[in-house]
Amino acid sequence: MTATGEQVFDWIDARADDRRRAGLTRQLRPRGSDSTLLDLAGNDYLGLSRDKRVSGAAAAAALRWGAGSTGSRLVTGTTELHTELEHALASFCGAQAALVFSSGFAANLGAITALSGKGSAIVTDAYIHASLIDGCRLSRADIAVMKHGDAAAINHALSTRRTEHALVVTDSVFSVDGDLAPLPALAEACRAHNAGLLVDDAHGFGVLGEGGRGAVADAGLIREPNVITTLTLSKSLGAQGGAVLGPRRVIRHLLETARTFIFDTGLAPASAAAALAALNVLKEEPGRPERVRTNAMTVAMRLREAGFRATMPDAAVISVHAPSPAAALGWADDCREAGVWVGCFRPPSVPDKISRLRLTVRADLTESDIDKAVDVIIRCAPPGAAQK
Amino acid sequence: MTATGEQVFDWIDARADDRRRAGLTRQLRPRGSDSTLLDLAGNDYLGLSRDKRVSGAAAAAALRWGAGSTGSRLVTGTTELHTELEHALASFCGAQAALVFSSGFAANLGAITALSGKGSAIVTDAYIHASLIDGCRLSRADIAVMKHGDAAAINHALSTRRTEHALVVTDSVFSVDGDLAPLPALAEACRAHNAGLLVDDAHGFGVLGEGGRGAVADAGLIREPNVITTLTLSKSLGAQGGAVLGPRRVIRHLLETARTFIFDTGLAPASAAAALAALNVLKEEPGRPERVRTNAMTVAMRLREAGFRATMPDAAVISVHAPSPAAALGWADDCREAGVWVGCFRPPSVPDKISRLRLTVRADLTESDIDKAVDVIIRCAPPGAAQK
Ligand SMILES: Cc1ncc(COP(=O)(O)O)c(C=O)c1O
Ligand SMILES: Cc1ncc(COP(=O)(O)O)c(C=O)c1O
Repeated sequence: MTATGEQVFDWIDARADDRRRAGLTRQLRPRGSDSTLLDLAGNDYLGLSRDKRVSGAAAAAALRWGAGSTGSRLVTGTTELHTELEHALASFCGAQAALVFSSGFAANLGAITALSGKGSAIVTDAYIHASLIDGCRLSRADIAVMKHGDAAAINHALSTRRTEHALVVTDSVFSVDGDLAPLPALAEACRAHNAGLLVDDAHGFGVLGEGGRGAVADAGLIREPNVITTLTLSKSLGAQGGAVLGPRRVIRHLLETARTFIFDTGLAPASAAAALAALNVLKEEPGRPERVRTNAMTVAMRLREAGFRATMPDAAVISVHAPSPAAALGWADDCREAGVWVGCFRPPSVPDKISRLRLTVRADLTESDIDKAVDVIIRCAPPGAAQK
Repeated sequence: MTATGEQVFDWIDARADDRRRAGLTRQLRPRGSDSTLLDLAGNDYLGLSRDKRVSGAAAAAALRWGAGSTGSRLVTGTTELHTELEHALASFCGAQAALVFSSGFAANLGAITALSGKGSAIVTDAYIHASLIDGCRLSRADIAVMKHGDAAAINHALSTRRTEHALVVTDSVFSVDGDLAPLPALAEACRAHNAGLLVDDAHGFGVLGEGGRGAVADAGLIREPNVITTLTLSKSLGAQGGAVLGPRRVIRHLLETARTFIFDTGLAPASAAAALAALNVLKEEPGRPERVRTNAMTVAMRLREAGFRATMPDAAVISVHAPSPAAALGWADDCREAGVWVGCFRPPSVPDKISRLRLTVRADLTESDIDKAVDVIIRCAPPGAAQK
């Protein structure tokens, strides 16, 4: 018999069966441009993705610069838009310099791998985002993973390390539960033990700090010589892309060595222009971040009053425990049926194996949006979700 | 003395000094939207990035859908545009199914890590792209790297492996020299030894094969049950983003498990729409790919006739050896001064430590563009670049 390669991927079917049995199947839900669902699932926290100032800037940039950047940032992929955006981000947050990547994921991979390596140590929180985890894995550093939220454990790991160089890696606002990392204590530990601190402010930027300058600025750390901040342009700024902020020499080092910067096509001009326009809206309307935080607190309190295990939100993200993966999925489906789109996070997208609804709020939710969302979530809850 | 963290990144200065001494410093060159440089450095092979049908589609999509996709493809980040693009890509190339990622880099990381892992083997060509290398590193598979272009060595490595699962990973057209991988021999080896074959067709798609269907389609492999093709939307399609094409069950597996798919914001609607529009232009104007190939051959032949060590291009990329990193940089700078933008690849962006000019051609270069480019490159050549 001739070999045909037919069986090579047979193992994939077995994995699919496992997922099906465990209630962990996933499905794309393509949305139309005129969807009337109330969105409590996306990360467009400031409601800027469809703001005409932002989408209009994207459209104008596509027409003026073309649909793509046409090359690596180091070849033809840097337009004046990219450098303008870098200056604007750095100056808004108060950092010395910034570098724009094609995504937040790429920014995290690039920053971590360029700032650590074989023979250095990385100490992380157990609940960091997948892109940070992958950056750590790629770095070939010695990795120590500490219990979630435990700055003392991170301090201890730093103090007992056997390597000269060390980098602490954390989210500012954790993406699943929306809770805040102990940034001041982590910074203190890093200073004391001569380590770098890399903070992914994906969910803090635009939501926390004065005028939305983010969690790192809010903690007074944005200009520290050993602190690096990574951002995404795809959440509060409603666009696509990522950025790293930090001391000038670090940014230059990334420009020269970060693999996801050198070997990746530059961000599309439309996305760079949209992020820049969104940043300008944020500067002009500094009340938006506070509206996000208030809306999050309102939704969380009302769910808690109704007996649900909702997290107390430090930013725009709330998670609500569900009794099982299947219950979480059914709950989210029923909410959707009733007009409210909520996120459903199940293993392996959660660090603690607990399935939950993941709710996000936007600055532009109205009171009646919030009423509707809370009512629907409560009404659709599966048995065992509420505790009274 | 209190610790301030000032010294944490001092090691970066030493690295910068090393690079400076070795002539390996890099610099961004932000371009204006009205640059008059003749571009032989970008990857917009079909000249579509600024085609009004493409940039216009990007602009319209930004206005209609918003500047960002607002979430992971598995939550709010899939618009009807994304699925339409997936169907169009799969059907154009003749694959069963396709999945769109936020970049070609992300597509490669996601596909390789989801299709291999601890206890499986990966066999690669020594010159694969950085994104493939990083995918292999992340996968935790046993990695064997074979001499460039050596299908027999890959066959041998497959036949002597000790693992059940194996994946061969290669570029179709190698990004530095523009040469073609021995795809038929690799496919034969994979079939014979029950291995998967992952081909990154970033530089083949849009340039090779009937109507630009790419190198994998051209080799008759696009529908093989053990073959996976990855693409970028940022070169021939002039946009941003990446895609994986393959058997339906493989694509579903990626949707359910690929980390750069699950944990990354979906591609911006403007970029998805631009790629879709560019694909339509390609269908309507199937002569573009051949014009790219002819232009590449013309440029290469003229440089070779003038005594330069230019590669014989299998697609749109030509590399020309330079005597040293500093000579390559000076050569590229002088060309730029004279109005022609060429790429300059030096370590660590080259697999063999040889610095070179990297030239790319576009379908829309005129005869006089080509005359000018060749004249300038010859005129600016450093001593020792030409062999006669
Ligand atoms: C904490 C965190 N970091 C990084 C990312 C990746 O950013 P991007 O989607 O821009 O790649 C995300 C989500 O997408 C995130 O939640
Ligand atoms: C061979 C190859 N694969 C993948 C990529 C990455 O694609 P993208 O730029 O869309 O991330 C590139 C270049 O950018 C490339 O040359």
